[in-house]
Amino acid sequence: MTSDVLCFMPIGDLAAQVASRERSALEVTRAFLSRIEAINPRVNAYTLVMGEEAERQARRIDEAIAAGRSPGPLAGVPIAIKDLIDVTGVPTTAAAHRRFHYTPERDAPLVARLRAAGGVIIGKTNLHEFAYGVTNINPHFGPVRNPWDLALIPGGSSGGSAAAVAAGLCAGALGSDTGGSIRIPSSLCGTVGLKPTYGRIPRTGVVALAWTLDHLGPITRTVRDAALLLRVMAGADPGDPASVEDALPPLDQQLDDGLRGIRIGVPRRFFWEQTDPQVQGLAESALRVLVDRGATLVDRDLPHAEDLISAVAIIITVEATAYHERRLRRSLGAYGEDLQIRLLRGFFVPGTDYVLAQRARAFFTQEFTAALQGADVLVTPTTTVPARPIEEDPAAAPAVSLAMSTELTRFTAPINLTGFPALSVPCGFTRGGLPVGLQIIGKPFDEGTVLRAGHAYEQATEWHTRRPPLQPLTR
Amino acid sequence: MTSDVLCFMPIGDLAAQVASRERSALEVTRAFLSRIEAINPRVNAYTLVMGEEAERQARRIDEAIAAGRSPGPLAGVPIAIKDLIDVTGVPTTAAAHRRFHYTPERDAPLVARLRAAGGVIIGKTNLHEFAYGVTNINPHFGPVRNPWDLALIPGGSSGGSAAAVAAGLCAGALGSDTGGSIRIPSSLCGTVGLKPTYGRIPRTGVVALAWTLDHLGPITRTVRDAALLLRVMAGADPGDPASVEDALPPLDQQLDDGLRGIRIGVPRRFFWEQTDPQVQGLAESALRVLVDRGATLVDRDLPHAEDLISAVAIIITVEATAYHERRLRRSLGAYGEDLQIRLLRGFFVPGTDYVLAQRARAFFTQEFTAALQGADVLVTPTTTVPARPIEEDPAAAPAVSLAMSTELTRFTAPINLTGFPALSVPCGFTRGGLPVGLQIIGKPFDEGTVLRAGHAYEQATEWHTRRPPLQPLTR
Repeated sequence: MTSDVLCFMPIGDLAAQVASRERSALEVTRAFLSRIEAINPRVNAYTLVMGEEAERQARRIDEAIAAGRSPGPLAGVPIAIKDLIDVTGVPTTAAAHRRFHYTPERDAPLVARLRAAGGVIIGKTNLHEFAYGVTNINPHFGPVRNPWDLALIPGGSSGGSAAAVAAGLCAGALGSDTGGSIRIPSSLCGTVGLKPTYGRIPRTGVVALAWTLDHLGPITRTVRDAALLLRVMAGADPGDPASVEDALPPLDQQLDDGLRGIRIGVPRRFFWEQTDPQVQGLAESALRVLVDRGATLVDRDLPHAEDLISAVAIIITVEATAYHERRLRRSLGAYGEDLQIRLLRGFFVPGTDYVLAQRARAFFTQEFTAALQGADVLVTPTTTVPARPIEEDPAAAPAVSLAMSTELTRFTAPINLTGFPALSVPCGFTRGGLPVGLQIIGKPFDEGTVLRAGHAYEQATEWHTRRPPLQPLTR
Repeated sequence: MTSDVLCFMPIGDLAAQVASRERSALEVTRAFLSRIEAINPRVNAYTLVMGEEAERQARRIDEAIAAGRSPGPLAGVPIAIKDLIDVTGVPTTAAAHRRFHYTPERDAPLVARLRAAGGVIIGKTNLHEFAYGVTNINPHFGPVRNPWDLALIPGGSSGGSAAAVAAGLCAGALGSDTGGSIRIPSSLCGTVGLKPTYGRIPRTGVVALAWTLDHLGPITRTVRDAALLLRVMAGADPGDPASVEDALPPLDQQLDDGLRGIRIGVPRRFFWEQTDPQVQGLAESALRVLVDRGATLVDRDLPHAEDLISAVAIIITVEATAYHERRLRRSLGAYGEDLQIRLLRGFFVPGTDYVLAQRARAFFTQEFTAALQGADVLVTPTTTVPARPIEEDPAAAPAVSLAMSTELTRFTAPINLTGFPALSVPCGFTRGGLPVGLQIIGKPFDEGTVLRAGHAYEQATEWHTRRPPLQPLTR
């Protein structure tokens, strides 16, 4: 077995091998560190690789196992953390100017939970500056590159996490998702990305983008891996008043329940429109696979879906600016040019527009609730298009970025408004070899059914077994 | 027994007499209608007296009792409804220009609950235009007058409800409270006013002022009456997504548990400052009574209480304007001059200020939660001053109104931010014979302890037995 095989092994298998001492946590960690060394310079997925520190963590796990202590369900599994989440002793950069970096004295609770389960924190992943964007502008840390084609964007803002997972540079990663930032890079990089129900995972120790839309979740190569990480990270924390304690069923069993009896709502209006024909075709094929495996399709209508877009835009704009207000007044020039414009724009949105957007949100959530009556999940493409080129001309980048954002967030951002759980799972490749994602949306706190449907679909296909070519970088 | 005795009888006694057929619901209703006819022209508490319709309701209750059906805990009890709450078949005016009136086809759920409990809806009470104010400006329906001195304001915006209760023009009334609109008129009119926990009583079928601060609650002459009405009105309704189903303990028993063991937090900073010396003295005396009856006083600090005021102001301003936005654009001139200015102001508050006010709110709520650790309730004066004169000069009114608002809302509005329950109970009279209220604030959904403390205090004093003189109106 070459060390690269370790780097693409399911999380559960990896942990079992470490727990049974078939393989040491240190060996596993070193396999990933060596792959990172070889590959990451081309992908730029990491802002920081925690080499020696990761090895220390791995040794402690090996010692615990040698001493007969239970190492937890993530024994020796290297996890990458989006670099807006606090990890003790290393800087949280949010991919921003170094003036804004700080070094936390404690892990964010979700990181502490991963560690307590035996996970090895292997590094911090690159993202869009302050997570405000889904495309390729990254003035301080440079763009992440899509492992399937290094000239293309990985999507964002959790692009580093998805690229690292796709390229075998970690076993799983954490992302955050305000308008699609877990699901979009998952769609573009061929990974599995779960935005759980709002409040499921606490955001204590995480740099905010927009409080009422921010979610945290796992990015992995399989649905089972995502379920495993979700289970470890779920549960309330007093530092995040929006986090809730809601029982998560034992996902492992439910995952294998298959598609029989599952009613899949297909909201044709808005959610299947304005889509690239290849993406559309792949998503339609996915529906046929779901039906072949026993699911029933039902038409569902979301009459006001089109109006969701501006509600999301207003809420993100206002909340992000409110979050950055003091820093903007003191250090405007330390923000990238694109972000300066976006954040300053927030000062000019009237409070009444914000309140009406929040009111509209309550209305849309009722529409989604109605659409999920008589359906277990809703299914849509995750993005309207596959990965787009990285715009290397800084002058053109903002305009290109705006157009791309519209294409990429159309189907994901509305789901942040509702707070409902949503999964992106690979559903095929374009003729050019680019991955495309299928979005599965569920009822609040019913991640179980979302993951069950996603897993059954995944098992019916072979998309998750493909590996990116990682050709040499040519520019 | 003269009919006026009926008009000041406790709600429970009144219902018991009707249920036992000692007295008919019709007789009771007529007693109130005749007192309204005699007194209301001086007080202007009602926008509409539902004479014949109330008699019809009373007759139906008498018929039900005669037929052996259980008439409910409010059998034949005349209740007045603040005129921004829907009552089937009569206009909801919100004391606004008639262009904005509408006639609902169904009762608001809380009105339906009162009716189902045997209550007789006797009329709609006067308020500040669209409930936006606590003083005396009322361009469309004229000012309500304080029964204790007709030259004075009753407080607002539920002034009509409090004045009607104080003057014996109904057995109990409904108010709404966004910054103090139940507690302030209760303080100024010598009534009991309860702002329950946010979400306790659904707001379906009620004209909004500021969604995230609006509460509904009872105004009565005794704490026991308030507990009775609360119990009938509590419980979730699907039309108000913020309403919750949270078990209300059987208040009747708890009410009589007395003050022994009750720890009363006294937040001296901010909440006992800038207070009229007579009000201060009466509230201090109330503390002594509470201690005499077995309560313990504990000092409590709310370090950022001063900052609460601007957060409330921003939230009300923005949400009220958002609510009225379309109407303002179509019919600006139909609003009173004072309200035009207030509502237009809302368009100029940036969304970021609103979001930061909401963030501050979460912070203050944590401070209040901390202050209520080791204390069962917090006690403050309800208002800094007793009732002020009605400003009869329209030119001076807005400026006078602004100054009065600051005095009147200082201690009440912060509690709307937290959503915690708060009661105003009479705690004495100034040398000029004006009533003054004591505010008792409790933990979320713990109205039981708030009412228990208020009832024990009330029973230790005789303030609730005094009647307003209702001298002839002189201007």
